Amino acid sequence: MHDTQLTFRDYLRTTAQTIDSAIQRRLSSLPDGQLSGPINHTLKGGKRMRGFLAMESARIHGVDPEHSLACAVAIELIHAYSLVHDDLPCMDDDPLRRGQPTVHVKWDEATAVLVGDALQSLAFEVLLDPAGIPDADLRSNLALSLAQRSGVAGMAGGQALDISAESDRDPPTVEDILELQRLKTGALIVWSAASGPILAREDPAAMLAYAEALGVAYQVADDLLDHTGNTQQLGKTAGKDAEAGKATLVGLLGGSRAREWADALAAKALDALKPYGDRAHMLAEAIAFTVRRKR
Amino acid sequence: MHDTQLTFRDYLRTTAQTIDSAIQRRLSSLPDGQLSGPINHTLKGGKRMRGFLAMESARIHGVDPEHSLACAVAIELIHAYSLVHDDLPCMDDDPLRRGQPTVHVKWDEATAVLVGDALQSLAFEVLLDPAGIPDADLRSNLALSLAQRSGVAGMAGGQALDISAESDRDPPTVEDILELQRLKTGALIVWSAASGPILAREDPAAMLAYAEALGVAYQVADDLLDHTGNTQQLGKTAGKDAEAGKATLVGLLGGSRAREWADALAAKALDALKPYGDRAHMLAEAIAFTVRRKR
Repeated sequence: MHDTQLTFRDYLRTTAQTIDSAIQRRLSSLPDGQLSGPINHTLKGGKRMRGFLAMESARIHGVDPEHSLACAVAIELIHAYSLVHDDLPCMDDDPLRRGQPTVHVKWDEATAVLVGDALQSLAFEVLLDPAGIPDADLRSNLALSLAQRSGVAGMAGGQALDISAESDRDPPTVEDILELQRLKTGALIVWSAASGPILAREDPAAMLAYAEALGVAYQVADDLLDHTGNTQQLGKTAGKDAEAGKATLVGLLGGSRAREWADALAAKALDALKPYGDRAHMLAEAIAFTVRRKR
Repeated sequence: MHDTQLTFRDYLRTTAQTIDSAIQRRLSSLPDGQLSGPINHTLKGGKRMRGFLAMESARIHGVDPEHSLACAVAIELIHAYSLVHDDLPCMDDDPLRRGQPTVHVKWDEATAVLVGDALQSLAFEVLLDPAGIPDADLRSNLALSLAQRSGVAGMAGGQALDISAESDRDPPTVEDILELQRLKTGALIVWSAASGPILAREDPAAMLAYAEALGVAYQVADDLLDHTGNTQQLGKTAGKDAEAGKATLVGLLGGSRAREWADALAAKALDALKPYGDRAHMLAEAIAFTVRRKR
Protein backbone atom coordinates (compact mmCIF):
# COMPACT_ATOMS: atom_id res chain seq x y z
CA MET A 1 0.00 0.00 0.00
CA HIS A 2 2.70 2.44 0.98
CA ASP A 3 4.73 1.76 -2.16
CA THR A 4 1.84 1.98 -4.62
CA GLN A 5 0.74 5.23 -2.97
CA LEU A 6 4.25 6.57 -3.37
CA THR A 7 4.02 5.64 -7.06
CA PHE A 8 0.64 7.33 -7.25
CA ARG A 9 1.99 10.52 -5.72
CA ASP A 10 4.74 10.62 -8.33
CA TYR A 11 2.28 9.89 -11.09
CA LEU A 12 -0.08 12.63 -9.87
CA ARG A 13 2.83 15.06 -9.59
CA THR A 14 3.98 14.32 -13.13
CA THR A 15 0.45 14.74 -14.47
CA ALA A 16 0.10 17.99 -12.52
CA GLN A 17 3.33 19.27 -14.09
CA THR A 18 1.98 18.55 -17.57
CA ILE A 19 -1.24 20.41 -16.71
CA ASP A 20 0.66 23.29 -15.08
CA SER A 21 2.82 23.72 -18.18
CA ALA A 22 -0.29 23.90 -20.35
CA ILE A 23 -1.88 26.41 -17.95
CA GLN A 24 1.28 28.53 -18.05
CA ARG A 25 1.37 28.45 -21.87
CA ARG A 26 -2.27 29.60 -21.95
CA LEU A 27 -1.74 32.35 -19.37
CA SER A 28 1.36 33.66 -21.13
CA SER A 29 -0.76 34.40 -24.22
CA LEU A 30 -3.18 36.61 -22.27
CA PRO A 31 -2.87 40.38 -22.72
CA ASP A 32 -0.78 42.00 -20.00
CA GLY A 33 -3.06 43.98 -17.71
CA GLN A 34 -4.51 44.49 -14.24
CA LEU A 35 -5.60 40.87 -13.98
CA SER A 36 -2.44 39.07 -15.18
CA GLY A 37 -0.63 39.16 -11.82
CA PRO A 38 -3.54 37.93 -9.69
CA ILE A 39 -4.52 35.29 -12.27
CA ASN A 40 -0.99 33.87 -12.27
CA HIS A 41 -0.93 33.99 -8.45
CA THR A 42 -4.24 32.10 -8.27
CA LEU A 43 -3.07 29.32 -10.53
CA LYS A 44 0.07 28.47 -8.57
CA GLY A 45 0.02 25.22 -6.61
CA GLY A 46 -2.81 22.80 -6.15
CA LYS A 47 -2.84 19.04 -6.57
CA ARG A 48 -4.69 19.24 -9.94
CA MET A 49 -6.88 16.32 -8.86
CA ARG A 50 -9.69 17.30 -11.27
CA GLY A 51 -7.22 17.74 -14.11
CA PHE A 52 -5.70 14.35 -13.26
CA LEU A 53 -9.15 12.72 -13.46
CA ALA A 54 -9.68 14.26 -16.90
CA MET A 55 -6.26 13.12 -18.15
CA GLU A 56 -6.46 9.62 -16.67
CA SER A 57 -10.09 8.88 -17.64
CA ALA A 58 -9.09 9.85 -21.18
CA ARG A 59 -5.90 7.79 -21.15
CA ILE A 60 -7.70 4.56 -20.21
CA HIS A 61 -10.12 5.22 -23.08
CA GLY A 62 -7.30 5.65 -25.60
CA VAL A 63 -7.83 9.40 -26.14
CA ASP A 64 -5.11 11.68 -27.58
CA PRO A 65 -3.57 13.44 -24.51
CA GLU A 66 -3.63 16.78 -26.34
CA HIS A 67 -7.43 16.60 -26.33
CA SER A 68 -7.74 15.63 -22.68
CA LEU A 69 -5.23 18.33 -21.74
CA ALA A 70 -7.78 20.93 -22.91
CA CYS A 71 -10.32 19.36 -20.53
CA ALA A 72 -7.80 19.23 -17.67
CA VAL A 73 -6.85 22.91 -18.08
CA ALA A 74 -10.48 24.00 -18.43
CA ILE A 75 -11.63 22.20 -15.27
CA GLU A 76 -8.69 23.54 -13.24
CA LEU A 77 -9.55 27.08 -14.39
CA ILE A 78 -13.17 26.60 -13.29
CA HIS A 79 -11.97 25.17 -9.97
CA ALA A 80 -9.54 28.08 -9.50
CA TYR A 81 -12.29 30.64 -10.21
CA SER A 82 -14.55 28.98 -7.63
CA LEU A 83 -11.81 29.08 -4.97
CA VAL A 84 -11.15 32.80 -5.52
CA HIS A 85 -14.87 33.61 -5.19
CA ASP A 86 -15.45 31.19 -2.27
CA ASP A 87 -12.61 32.83 -0.34
CA LEU A 88 -14.19 36.33 -0.63
CA PRO A 89 -15.12 38.05 2.66
CA CYS A 90 -18.83 37.78 1.78
CA MET A 91 -18.48 34.01 1.31
CA ASP A 92 -16.04 31.91 3.38
CA ASP A 93 -13.79 34.90 4.18
CA ASP A 94 -10.52 33.02 3.98
CA PRO A 95 -7.17 34.86 3.97
CA LEU A 96 -5.13 31.78 3.00
CA ARG A 97 -5.23 29.36 0.10
CA ARG A 98 -2.55 26.84 -0.82
CA GLY A 99 -0.34 28.49 1.79
CA GLN A 100 -0.55 31.89 0.06
CA PRO A 101 -2.61 35.02 0.75
CA THR A 102 -5.89 34.94 -1.19
CA VAL A 103 -6.50 37.39 -4.04
CA HIS A 104 -8.75 39.77 -2.06
CA VAL A 105 -6.05 39.95 0.65
CA LYS A 106 -3.04 40.42 -1.66
CA TRP A 107 -4.96 42.71 -4.03
CA ASP A 108 -8.56 43.68 -3.27
CA GLU A 109 -12.11 42.35 -3.46
CA ALA A 110 -12.90 43.91 -6.84
CA THR A 111 -9.86 42.19 -8.31
CA ALA A 112 -10.91 38.85 -6.78
CA VAL A 113 -14.40 39.12 -8.28
CA LEU A 114 -12.97 39.98 -11.72
CA VAL A 115 -10.28 37.28 -11.59
CA GLY A 116 -12.96 34.66 -10.92
CA ASP A 117 -15.18 36.04 -13.69
CA ALA A 118 -12.32 36.09 -16.19
CA LEU A 119 -11.16 32.58 -15.25
CA GLN A 120 -14.63 31.19 -15.90
CA SER A 121 -14.60 32.78 -19.38
CA LEU A 122 -11.07 31.46 -19.95
CA ALA A 123 -12.12 27.90 -19.11
CA PHE A 124 -14.69 27.99 -21.92
CA GLU A 125 -12.15 29.64 -24.22
CA VAL A 126 -9.70 26.77 -23.63
CA LEU A 127 -12.31 24.05 -24.07
CA LEU A 128 -13.83 25.60 -27.21
CA ASP A 129 -10.50 26.21 -28.95
CA PRO A 130 -10.34 23.96 -32.04
CA ALA A 131 -6.57 23.72 -31.49
CA GLY A 132 -7.31 21.65 -28.37
CA ILE A 133 -10.27 19.44 -29.33
CA PRO A 134 -10.62 19.45 -33.14
CA ASP A 135 -14.09 17.89 -33.29
CA ALA A 136 -16.73 20.64 -32.95
CA ASP A 137 -19.43 18.27 -31.69
CA LEU A 138 -17.21 16.97 -28.90
CA ARG A 139 -15.93 20.34 -27.71
CA SER A 140 -19.41 21.82 -27.90
CA ASN A 141 -20.91 18.92 -25.87
CA LEU A 142 -18.15 19.05 -23.28
CA ALA A 143 -18.50 22.82 -22.90
CA LEU A 144 -22.27 22.48 -22.59
CA SER A 145 -21.96 19.94 -19.79
CA LEU A 146 -19.24 22.02 -18.11
CA ALA A 147 -21.63 25.00 -18.13
CA GLN A 148 -24.40 22.85 -16.66
CA ARG A 149 -22.17 21.44 -13.92
CA SER A 150 -20.75 24.89 -13.05
CA GLY A 151 -24.02 26.80 -12.81
CA VAL A 152 -27.28 26.83 -10.86
CA ALA A 153 -27.78 23.07 -11.21
CA GLY A 154 -24.15 22.42 -10.23
CA MET A 155 -21.32 24.13 -8.39
CA ALA A 156 -22.80 27.64 -8.01
CA GLY A 157 -26.10 26.14 -6.81
CA GLY A 158 -24.19 24.01 -4.27
CA GLN A 159 -22.25 26.99 -2.97
CA ALA A 160 -25.54 28.91 -2.57
CA LEU A 161 -26.92 26.01 -0.49
CA ASP A 162 -23.74 26.01 1.59
CA ILE A 163 -23.92 29.74 2.31
CA SER A 164 -27.61 29.60 3.22
CA ALA A 165 -27.13 26.52 5.44
CA GLU A 166 -24.95 28.63 7.76
CA SER A 167 -27.88 30.88 8.64
CA ASP A 168 -30.62 28.21 8.63
CA ARG A 169 -32.30 27.57 11.94
CA ASP A 170 -33.10 23.92 11.21
CA PRO A 171 -30.03 21.74 11.35
CA PRO A 172 -29.36 20.07 7.99
CA THR A 173 -30.01 16.36 7.50
CA VAL A 174 -27.50 13.92 6.06
CA GLU A 175 -29.50 14.07 2.80
CA ASP A 176 -29.25 17.89 2.72
CA ILE A 177 -25.49 17.69 3.12
CA LEU A 178 -25.09 14.99 0.47
CA GLU A 179 -27.12 17.06 -2.01
CA LEU A 180 -25.08 20.18 -1.20
CA GLN A 181 -21.80 18.33 -1.70
CA ARG A 182 -23.01 16.55 -4.84
CA LEU A 183 -23.48 20.00 -6.38
CA LYS A 184 -20.69 22.00 -4.80
CA THR A 185 -17.77 19.58 -5.12
CA GLY A 186 -19.16 16.56 -6.92
CA ALA A 187 -20.25 18.29 -10.13
CA LEU A 188 -16.74 19.22 -11.30
CA ILE A 189 -15.23 15.87 -10.24
CA VAL A 190 -17.94 14.03 -12.18
CA TRP A 191 -17.39 16.22 -15.25
CA SER A 192 -13.64 15.54 -15.12
CA ALA A 193 -13.98 11.76 -14.95
CA ALA A 194 -16.71 11.67 -17.61
CA SER A 195 -14.71 13.79 -20.06
CA GLY A 196 -12.47 10.81 -20.97
CA PRO A 197 -15.18 8.44 -22.23
CA ILE A 198 -17.02 11.38 -23.85
CA LEU A 199 -13.88 12.28 -25.84
CA ALA A 200 -13.64 8.60 -26.83
CA ARG A 201 -17.36 8.57 -27.74
CA GLU A 202 -17.88 5.76 -25.24
CA ASP A 203 -20.49 5.27 -22.53
CA PRO A 204 -19.47 7.33 -19.46
CA ALA A 205 -21.68 5.32 -17.02
CA ALA A 206 -18.84 3.54 -15.17
CA MET A 207 -16.79 6.74 -14.88
CA LEU A 208 -19.87 8.60 -13.60
CA ALA A 209 -20.47 5.99 -10.88
CA TYR A 210 -16.78 6.10 -9.92
CA ALA A 211 -16.69 9.89 -9.76
CA GLU A 212 -19.96 10.29 -7.88
CA ALA A 213 -18.70 8.08 -5.04
CA LEU A 214 -15.23 9.65 -5.21
CA GLY A 215 -16.71 13.15 -5.10
CA VAL A 216 -18.52 12.57 -1.81
CA ALA A 217 -15.52 10.70 -0.35
CA TYR A 218 -13.31 13.64 -1.34
CA GLN A 219 -15.57 16.11 0.45
CA VAL A 220 -15.88 13.97 3.59
CA ALA A 221 -12.08 13.64 3.67
CA ASP A 222 -11.84 17.44 3.27
CA ASP A 223 -14.21 17.94 6.20
CA LEU A 224 -12.25 15.45 8.32
CA LEU A 225 -9.07 17.39 7.57
CA ASP A 226 -10.71 20.67 8.53
CA HIS A 227 -11.82 18.92 11.73
CA THR A 228 -8.47 17.38 12.67
CA GLY A 229 -5.79 19.18 10.62
CA ASN A 230 -3.79 22.31 11.32
CA THR A 231 -3.48 25.44 9.24
CA GLN A 232 0.19 25.01 8.30
CA GLN A 233 -0.39 21.45 7.06
CA LEU A 234 -3.51 22.39 5.10
CA GLY A 235 -2.24 25.61 3.54
CA LYS A 236 -5.63 27.06 4.38
CA THR A 237 -7.28 28.00 7.67
CA ALA A 238 -8.20 24.89 9.71
CA GLY A 239 -11.30 24.52 11.88
CA LYS A 240 -13.19 27.19 9.89
CA ASP A 241 -16.16 24.98 9.05
CA ALA A 242 -17.18 24.29 12.64
CA GLU A 243 -16.59 27.94 13.49
CA ALA A 244 -18.83 29.11 10.64
CA GLY A 245 -21.51 26.60 11.65
CA LYS A 246 -21.05 24.87 8.28
CA ALA A 247 -23.11 21.84 7.42
CA THR A 248 -20.76 18.87 7.17
CA LEU A 249 -21.15 15.13 7.61
CA VAL A 250 -18.38 15.27 10.21
CA GLY A 251 -20.36 17.83 12.19
CA LEU A 252 -23.49 15.72 12.01
CA LEU A 253 -22.13 12.18 12.41
CA GLY A 254 -18.88 12.77 14.26
CA GLY A 255 -15.40 11.96 13.04
CA SER A 256 -15.42 8.18 13.31
CA ARG A 257 -18.76 7.57 11.58
CA ALA A 258 -17.79 10.07 8.86
CA ARG A 259 -14.57 8.08 8.38
CA GLU A 260 -16.69 4.91 7.94
CA TRP A 261 -18.79 6.72 5.31
CA ALA A 262 -15.67 7.75 3.45
CA ASP A 263 -14.42 4.16 3.47
CA ALA A 264 -17.75 2.82 2.22
CA LEU A 265 -17.75 5.37 -0.58
CA ALA A 266 -14.18 4.42 -1.43
CA ALA A 267 -15.27 0.79 -1.80
CA LYS A 268 -18.14 1.86 -4.05
CA ALA A 269 -15.83 3.93 -6.26
CA LEU A 270 -13.39 1.00 -6.52
CA ASP A 271 -16.23 -1.30 -7.50
CA ALA A 272 -17.24 1.01 -10.36
CA LEU A 273 -13.76 0.60 -11.89
CA LYS A 274 -14.07 -3.20 -12.26
CA PRO A 275 -15.00 -3.15 -15.98
CA TYR A 276 -11.62 -1.52 -16.72
CA GLY A 277 -9.48 -4.10 -14.90
CA ASP A 278 -5.80 -3.21 -14.55
CA ARG A 279 -6.08 -0.25 -16.89
CA ALA A 280 -7.79 1.71 -14.10
CA HIS A 281 -4.95 1.05 -11.63
CA MET A 282 -4.13 4.74 -11.13
CA LEU A 283 -7.78 5.75 -10.79
CA ALA A 284 -8.05 3.10 -8.06
CA GLU A 285 -4.99 4.53 -6.30
CA ALA A 286 -6.60 7.95 -6.52
CA ILE A 287 -9.40 6.72 -4.24
CA ALA A 288 -7.08 5.68 -1.42
CA PHE A 289 -5.11 8.90 -1.90
CA THR A 290 -8.30 10.95 -1.67
CA VAL A 291 -9.65 9.27 1.44
CA ARG A 292 -6.34 9.08 3.32
CA ARG A 293 -4.73 12.35 2.24
CA LYS A 294 -3.29 14.67 4.85
CA ARG A 295 -4.00 17.98 3.07
CA MET B 1 -37.03 61.72 -37.38
CA HIS B 2 -39.52 61.69 -34.52
CA ASP B 3 -41.85 59.27 -36.30
CA THR B 4 -39.19 56.78 -37.34
CA GLN B 5 -37.79 56.87 -33.80
CA LEU B 6 -41.27 56.12 -32.49
CA THR B 7 -41.38 53.16 -34.88
CA PHE B 8 -37.94 52.09 -33.69
CA ARG B 9 -39.02 52.21 -30.04
CA ASP B 10 -41.97 49.94 -30.86
CA TYR B 11 -39.74 47.62 -32.86
CA LEU B 12 -37.17 47.46 -30.05
CA ARG B 13 -39.93 46.83 -27.50
CA THR B 14 -41.39 44.00 -29.57
CA THR B 15 -37.94 42.43 -30.02
CA ALA B 16 -37.28 42.82 -26.29
CA GLN B 17 -40.57 41.00 -25.55
CA THR B 18 -39.51 38.09 -27.76
CA ILE B 19 -36.16 37.93 -25.97
CA ASP B 20 -37.79 38.28 -22.53
CA SER B 21 -40.14 35.39 -23.27
CA ALA B 22 -37.20 33.21 -24.26
CA ILE B 23 -35.32 34.23 -21.11
CA GLN B 24 -38.37 33.41 -18.98
CA ARG B 25 -38.74 29.99 -20.64
CA ARG B 26 -35.09 29.27 -19.92
CA LEU B 27 -35.28 30.45 -16.31
CA SER B 28 -38.45 28.45 -15.61
CA SER B 29 -36.55 25.24 -16.40
CA LEU B 30 -33.87 25.95 -13.78
CA PRO B 31 -34.02 23.96 -10.53
CA ASP B 32 -35.81 25.82 -7.77
CA GLY B 33 -33.27 26.95 -5.20
CA GLN B 34 -31.55 29.80 -3.39
CA LEU B 35 -30.61 31.52 -6.63
CA SER B 36 -33.95 31.35 -8.53
CA GLY B 37 -35.48 34.45 -6.90
CA PRO B 38 -32.48 36.75 -7.35
CA ILE B 39 -31.82 35.48 -10.90
CA ASN B 40 -35.40 36.27 -11.91
CA HIS B 41 -35.16 39.66 -10.21
CA THR B 42 -31.94 40.46 -12.07
CA LEU B 43 -33.42 39.67 -15.46
CA LYS B 44 -36.45 41.94 -15.17
CA GLY B 45 -36.39 45.10 -17.29
CA GLY B 46 -33.66 46.39 -19.52
CA LYS B 47 -33.85 47.59 -23.10
CA ARG B 48 -32.26 44.36 -24.46
CA MET B 49 -30.15 46.48 -26.81
CA ARG B 50 -27.48 43.74 -27.16
CA GLY B 51 -30.13 41.11 -27.77
CA PHE B 52 -31.75 43.38 -30.37
CA LEU B 53 -28.40 43.71 -32.19
CA ALA B 54 -28.07 39.92 -32.28
CA MET B 55 -31.63 39.45 -33.58
CA GLU B 56 -31.49 42.25 -36.13
CA SER B 57 -28.00 41.51 -37.49
CA ALA B 58 -29.20 37.94 -38.02
CA ARG B 59 -32.48 39.02 -39.64
CA ILE B 60 -30.78 41.14 -42.29
CA HIS B 61 -28.57 38.13 -43.09
CA GLY B 62 -31.54 35.80 -43.53
CA VAL B 63 -30.85 33.72 -40.39
CA ASP B 64 -33.57 31.60 -38.72
CA PRO B 65 -34.78 33.70 -35.73
CA GLU B 66 -34.69 30.64 -33.46
CA HIS B 67 -30.91 30.52 -33.94
CA SER B 68 -30.37 34.22 -33.31
CA LEU B 69 -32.67 34.04 -30.27
CA ALA B 70 -30.10 31.76 -28.60
CA CYS B 71 -27.46 34.46 -29.23
CA ALA B 72 -29.76 37.21 -27.95
CA VAL B 73 -30.55 35.34 -24.72
CA ALA B 74 -26.91 34.39 -24.15
CA ILE B 75 -25.61 37.94 -24.56
CA GLU B 76 -28.32 39.37 -22.27
CA LEU B 77 -27.38 36.79 -19.61
CA ILE B 78 -23.71 37.81 -19.85
CA HIS B 79 -24.73 41.47 -19.68
CA ALA B 80 -26.95 40.78 -16.65
CA TYR B 81 -24.14 38.93 -14.85
CA SER B 82 -21.78 41.85 -15.45
CA LEU B 83 -24.29 44.35 -14.03
CA VAL B 84 -24.80 42.31 -10.84
CA HIS B 85 -21.05 42.10 -10.26
CA ASP B 86 -20.37 45.73 -11.28
CA ASP B 87 -22.96 46.91 -8.75
CA LEU B 88 -21.24 45.11 -5.83
CA PRO B 89 -19.96 47.29 -2.97
CA CYS B 90 -16.34 46.43 -3.87
CA MET B 91 -16.93 47.61 -7.47
CA ASP B 92 -19.30 50.51 -8.30
CA ASP B 93 -21.33 50.08 -5.07
CA ASP B 94 -24.70 50.86 -6.61
CA PRO B 95 -27.93 50.23 -4.68
CA LEU B 96 -30.20 50.74 -7.71
CA ARG B 97 -30.45 49.13 -11.13
CA ARG B 98 -33.31 49.50 -13.60
CA GLY B 99 -35.22 51.30 -10.83
CA GLN B 100 -34.98 48.28 -8.49
CA PRO B 101 -32.71 47.48 -5.55
CA THR B 102 -29.60 45.60 -6.67
CA VAL B 103 -29.10 41.94 -5.69
CA HIS B 104 -26.60 42.61 -2.89
CA VAL B 105 -29.05 45.12 -1.38
CA LYS B 106 -32.22 42.99 -1.70
CA TRP B 107 -30.37 39.76 -0.76
CA ASP B 108 -26.69 39.88 0.16
CA GLU B 109 -23.23 40.09 -1.41
CA ALA B 110 -22.62 36.33 -1.48
CA THR B 111 -25.86 35.88 -3.42
CA ALA B 112 -24.87 38.63 -5.87
CA VAL B 113 -21.50 36.97 -6.52
CA LEU B 114 -23.14 33.57 -7.08
CA VAL B 115 -25.95 34.97 -9.25
CA GLY B 116 -23.35 36.55 -11.55
CA ASP B 117 -21.29 33.36 -11.63
CA ALA B 118 -24.33 31.21 -12.42
CA LEU B 119 -25.58 33.60 -15.11
CA GLN B 120 -22.24 33.44 -16.89
CA SER B 121 -22.47 29.61 -16.93
CA LEU B 122 -26.08 29.82 -18.09
CA ALA B 123 -25.15 32.03 -21.03
CA PHE B 124 -22.79 29.32 -22.33
CA GLU B 125 -25.42 26.68 -21.61
CA VAL B 126 -27.95 28.54 -23.77
CA LEU B 127 -25.52 29.17 -26.61
CA LEU B 128 -24.18 25.60 -26.65
CA ASP B 129 -27.61 23.93 -26.57
CA PRO B 130 -28.11 22.08 -29.90
CA ALA B 131 -31.85 22.88 -29.59
CA GLY B 132 -30.96 26.54 -30.20
CA ILE B 133 -28.19 26.47 -32.83
CA PRO B 134 -28.15 23.00 -34.46
CA ASP B 135 -24.77 23.35 -36.19
CA ALA B 136 -21.98 22.37 -33.76
CA ASP B 137 -19.31 24.38 -35.59
CA LEU B 138 -21.38 27.55 -35.44
CA ARG B 139 -22.37 27.28 -31.79
CA SER B 140 -18.85 26.32 -30.80
CA ASN B 141 -17.36 29.30 -32.70
CA LEU B 142 -19.90 31.73 -31.27
CA ALA B 143 -19.34 30.45 -27.73
CA LEU B 144 -15.57 30.70 -28.19
CA SER B 145 -15.79 34.31 -29.30
CA LEU B 146 -18.27 35.08 -26.49
CA ALA B 147 -15.74 33.69 -23.98
CA GLN B 148 -12.97 35.79 -25.55
CA ARG B 149 -15.05 38.97 -25.50
CA SER B 150 -16.23 38.37 -21.90
CA GLY B 151 -12.86 37.62 -20.32
CA VAL B 152 -9.47 39.20 -19.73
CA ALA B 153 -9.18 40.46 -23.33
CA GLY B 154 -12.75 41.81 -23.22
CA MET B 155 -15.35 42.87 -20.68
CA ALA B 156 -13.67 41.67 -17.46
CA GLY B 157 -10.36 43.22 -18.56
CA GLY B 158 -12.17 46.50 -19.28
CA GLN B 159 -13.86 46.52 -15.89
CA ALA B 160 -10.46 45.91 -14.24
CA LEU B 161 -9.05 48.95 -16.10
CA ASP B 162 -12.07 50.99 -15.00
CA ILE B 163 -11.65 50.05 -11.33
CA SER B 164 -7.91 50.75 -11.36
CA ALA B 165 -8.37 54.08 -13.19
CA GLU B 166 -10.24 55.39 -10.13
CA SER B 167 -7.13 55.09 -7.97
CA ASP B 168 -4.54 56.06 -10.60
CA ARG B 169 -2.61 59.22 -9.92
CA ASP B 170 -2.08 60.09 -13.58
CA PRO B 171 -5.23 61.32 -15.26
CA PRO B 172 -6.25 59.03 -18.12
CA THR B 173 -5.82 60.11 -21.72
CA VAL B 174 -8.56 59.97 -24.35
CA GLU B 175 -6.81 56.86 -25.72
CA ASP B 176 -6.88 55.18 -22.28
CA ILE B 177 -10.62 55.79 -22.02
CA LEU B 178 -11.35 54.56 -25.53
CA GLU B 179 -9.42 51.35 -24.84
CA LEU B 180 -11.24 50.86 -21.54
CA GLN B 181 -14.64 51.35 -23.18
CA ARG B 182 -13.76 49.20 -26.19
CA LEU B 183 -13.25 46.33 -23.75
CA LYS B 184 -15.81 47.04 -21.06
CA THR B 185 -18.86 47.92 -23.17
CA GLY B 186 -17.75 47.52 -26.76
CA ALA B 187 -16.83 43.83 -26.62
CA LEU B 188 -20.38 42.54 -25.99
CA ILE B 189 -21.95 44.99 -28.47
CA VAL B 190 -19.50 43.89 -31.15
CA TRP B 191 -20.17 40.21 -30.42
CA SER B 192 -23.93 40.80 -30.69
CA ALA B 193 -23.77 42.54 -34.05
CA ALA B 194 -21.27 40.04 -35.47
CA SER B 195 -23.34 37.01 -34.42
CA GLY B 196 -25.79 37.56 -37.33
CA PRO B 197 -23.30 37.30 -40.20
CA ILE B 198 -21.45 34.51 -38.36
CA LEU B 199 -24.68 32.47 -38.14
CA ALA B 200 -25.18 33.14 -41.87
CA ARG B 201 -21.54 32.15 -42.55
CA GLU B 202 -20.96 35.57 -44.10
CA ASP B 203 -18.17 38.11 -43.61
CA PRO B 204 -18.84 40.06 -40.38
CA ALA B 205 -16.56 43.01 -41.34
CA ALA B 206 -19.34 45.57 -41.97
CA MET B 207 -21.19 44.59 -38.79
CA LEU B 208 -17.94 44.79 -36.81
CA ALA B 209 -17.26 48.34 -38.08
CA TYR B 210 -20.85 49.33 -37.29
CA ALA B 211 -20.75 47.88 -33.78
CA GLU B 212 -17.31 49.24 -32.88
CA ALA B 213 -18.47 52.81 -33.61
CA LEU B 214 -21.87 52.18 -32.00
CA GLY B 215 -20.22 50.71 -28.87
CA VAL B 216 -18.19 53.84 -28.17
CA ALA B 217 -21.15 56.11 -29.03
CA TYR B 218 -23.28 54.09 -26.61
CA GLN B 219 -20.80 54.53 -23.78
CA VAL B 220 -20.32 58.26 -24.43
CA ALA B 221 -24.12 58.67 -24.42
CA ASP B 222 -24.23 56.73 -21.13
CA ASP B 223 -21.61 59.02 -19.63
CA LEU B 224 -23.50 62.10 -20.85
CA LEU B 225 -26.63 60.76 -19.16
CA ASP B 226 -24.76 60.16 -15.91
CA HIS B 227 -23.48 63.74 -16.23
CA THR B 228 -26.82 65.42 -16.96
CA GLY B 229 -29.57 62.95 -15.98
CA ASN B 230 -31.33 62.37 -12.72
CA THR B 231 -31.65 59.16 -10.72
CA GLN B 232 -35.38 58.67 -11.23
CA GLN B 233 -35.08 59.01 -15.00
CA LEU B 234 -32.09 56.68 -15.22
CA GLY B 235 -33.33 53.98 -12.84
CA LYS B 236 -29.80 53.97 -11.43
CA THR B 237 -27.85 56.46 -9.35
CA ALA B 238 -26.93 59.57 -11.39
CA GLY B 239 -23.69 61.55 -11.06
CA LYS B 240 -21.84 58.53 -9.64
CA ASP B 241 -19.06 58.56 -12.22
CA ALA B 242 -17.81 62.05 -11.42
CA GLU B 243 -18.15 61.30 -7.70
CA ALA B 244 -16.08 58.12 -8.01
CA GLY B 245 -13.46 59.96 -10.09
CA LYS B 246 -14.25 57.64 -13.00
CA ALA B 247 -12.42 58.06 -16.27
CA THR B 248 -14.94 59.20 -18.90
CA LEU B 249 -14.70 61.18 -22.12
CA VAL B 250 -17.26 63.59 -20.68
CA GLY B 251 -15.01 64.21 -17.68
CA LEU B 252 -12.00 64.78 -19.92
CA LEU B 253 -13.50 66.72 -22.84
CA GLY B 254 -16.57 68.29 -21.27
CA GLY B 255 -20.19 67.70 -22.27
CA SER B 256 -20.32 69.54 -25.58
CA ARG B 257 -17.15 68.07 -27.10
CA ALA B 258 -18.22 64.60 -25.91
CA ARG B 259 -21.54 65.15 -27.67
CA GLU B 260 -19.61 65.99 -30.87
CA TRP B 261 -17.65 62.76 -30.50
CA ALA B 262 -20.85 60.78 -30.11
CA ASP B 263 -22.28 62.39 -33.26
CA ALA B 264 -19.10 61.67 -35.25
CA LEU B 265 -19.20 58.04 -34.10
CA ALA B 266 -22.87 57.84 -35.06
CA ALA B 267 -21.99 59.00 -38.59
CA LYS B 268 -19.25 56.38 -38.76
CA ALA B 269 -21.63 53.61 -37.65
CA LEU B 270 -24.21 54.72 -40.21
CA ASP B 271 -21.58 54.69 -42.94
CA ALA B 272 -20.69 51.08 -42.11
CA LEU B 273 -24.28 50.03 -42.86
CA LYS B 274 -24.17 51.29 -46.49
CA PRO B 275 -23.56 47.86 -48.07
CA TYR B 276 -26.90 46.67 -46.64
CA GLY B 277 -29.01 49.52 -48.05
CA ASP B 278 -32.61 49.65 -46.82
CA ARG B 279 -32.39 46.27 -45.12
CA ALA B 280 -30.34 47.87 -42.32
CA HIS B 281 -33.02 50.51 -41.68
CA MET B 282 -33.62 49.46 -38.04
CA LEU B 283 -29.91 49.14 -37.27
CA ALA B 284 -29.56 52.72 -38.54
CA GLU B 285 -32.39 53.86 -36.29
CA ALA B 286 -30.64 52.13 -33.40
CA ILE B 287 -27.73 54.57 -33.77
CA ALA B 288 -29.89 57.67 -33.37
CA PHE B 289 -31.72 55.98 -30.49
CA THR B 290 -28.42 55.16 -28.79
CA VAL B 291 -26.92 58.62 -29.11
CA ARG B 292 -30.08 60.58 -28.25
CA ARG B 293 -31.62 58.31 -25.60
CA LYS B 294 -32.72 59.76 -22.27
CA ARG B 295 -31.98 56.72 -20.07
